[in-house]
Amino acid sequence: METISINTSHGGIQGVYRHDSAECRCPMTFAVFTPPQAADGPCPVLYYLSGLTCTHQNVMDKGEYRRAAAEHGVLIVCPDTSPRGNGIANDEAYDMGQGAGFYLDATADPWAKHFRMYSYVTRELPQLIEPNFFADMTRQSIFGHSMGGHGALTIALKNPDTYRSVSAFAPIVNPISVPWGQKAFPAYLGEDRALWRQHDAAALIEDGHRVEEILVDQGDKDQFLTEQLQPEALEAACTNAGIDLTLNMRPGYDHSYFFISTFMEDHIAWHAQRLKA
Amino acid sequence: METISINTSHGGIQGVYRHDSAECRCPMTFAVFTPPQAADGPCPVLYYLSGLTCTHQNVMDKGEYRRAAAEHGVLIVCPDTSPRGNGIANDEAYDMGQGAGFYLDATADPWAKHFRMYSYVTRELPQLIEPNFFADMTRQSIFGHSMGGHGALTIALKNPDTYRSVSAFAPIVNPISVPWGQKAFPAYLGEDRALWRQHDAAALIEDGHRVEEILVDQGDKDQFLTEQLQPEALEAACTNAGIDLTLNMRPGYDHSYFFISTFMEDHIAWHAQRLKA
Repeated sequence: METISINTSHGGIQGVYRHDSAECRCPMTFAVFTPPQAADGPCPVLYYLSGLTCTHQNVMDKGEYRRAAAEHGVLIVCPDTSPRGNGIANDEAYDMGQGAGFYLDATADPWAKHFRMYSYVTRELPQLIEPNFFADMTRQSIFGHSMGGHGALTIALKNPDTYRSVSAFAPIVNPISVPWGQKAFPAYLGEDRALWRQHDAAALIEDGHRVEEILVDQGDKDQFLTEQLQPEALEAACTNAGIDLTLNMRPGYDHSYFFISTFMEDHIAWHAQRLKA
Repeated sequence: METISINTSHGGIQGVYRHDSAECRCPMTFAVFTPPQAADGPCPVLYYLSGLTCTHQNVMDKGEYRRAAAEHGVLIVCPDTSPRGNGIANDEAYDMGQGAGFYLDATADPWAKHFRMYSYVTRELPQLIEPNFFADMTRQSIFGHSMGGHGALTIALKNPDTYRSVSAFAPIVNPISVPWGQKAFPAYLGEDRALWRQHDAAALIEDGHRVEEILVDQGDKDQFLTEQLQPEALEAACTNAGIDLTLNMRPGYDHSYFFISTFMEDHIAWHAQRLKA
């Protein structure tokens, strides 16, 4: 693991690191904020998964998470959204290929070789965090934005014993029913719709997967709300399944980091409460 | 005045605007955060002046000022650091020309025609803010970073009746004695050193200009500390003049927005107290 940059911030350390990923078969860059409490012992870990087109850097620059993370003593880990580089499959569209990994393990060519973000986020990255940071791996939670909200929800639903809590900002909750998923899933996963359902939060809940509770914040002026996000699909699935969903509709807010940063502190406090329970 | 973008954030409105500047003779872009309290009446105004290479956008993305501004009900105005565009004088170096206006009115060619950031910030921009935003122009304060800290200090010292308070992050305090100023001032102002002293905080204080108090935060791992910033020059001038300087040396912090964002809230709270006194 190579250190790209280190900056003191909000009493902790904001670092950027790179390593050769075995899953993605390429160098992967990620950001970690180590809070000041790490000086006193291992801290709980909160993974933030970013949305389409983003790298680790968008939330690091614009997410405003360090103040709350330092207050609550939570380590924040921000991976990239896909493998990247020359020689790795790509697409000119913003919603396919590099920057659009959808947190799944692709099974169809040309994506299968490198696009293994599910295994990267759930296995390889934690194995890298554990020995290199002051992390208490018995206390992990996950959240994300948009495509990263989709990633957080599906990963938590499939691994309820690994993550103590899950939340999302403006998540894609039912990709198999909206254009983003209907474009990405056949490309990455082929035509087997049973496989698609393994990467769809609403479908996973319908198929019996469970978490105790979910926190979602959603702007009502989000430009993707009606066509791509449709939080009512998650609401219906949670109601039927008896999952305690808190869905905060936020008047006036859009899909941007101006929205995310506003409610970042609420989400970190919510996770911290559960990570320390 | 043209609205470039509007985003709801932290209960207020983060806007980006453009207008044809008479002083700079070119379109100028600036950012304004209007806090939620503007719904109840005019809010005090706090100008943030950015450092070398920056536009309005760096602090808007990375400064983390909206939370505190919304808490204290302060309007935050973030201008660009120079005129910009084709046909406007420039230099390939990062510390001359576009992005490096030094908040002065240039008197030497080729800069004199457009580089009038002093008049822009102190006269033209306030005259634009007053009719277009919910601003109480009887309550104005100013702060900034690095070159923008220099701008804030020199502007406040020259206009103590206009600005109720002044603070800075890692400011250039004595440009005539350090490489940045010794390069920029002869280019922008010619060889008349009396004119240089009009744009040097330590020299202005030596020459009798006064403010009641100054707040400065400075990282002790700042890569520019020894060669360019030298806060001890401001400290000496303030001590001799009886100006109440609070100089917080912050262990481990560098010159970046990771530093600025950490202490942004302290500065906004400090200004708010004085703006509301």
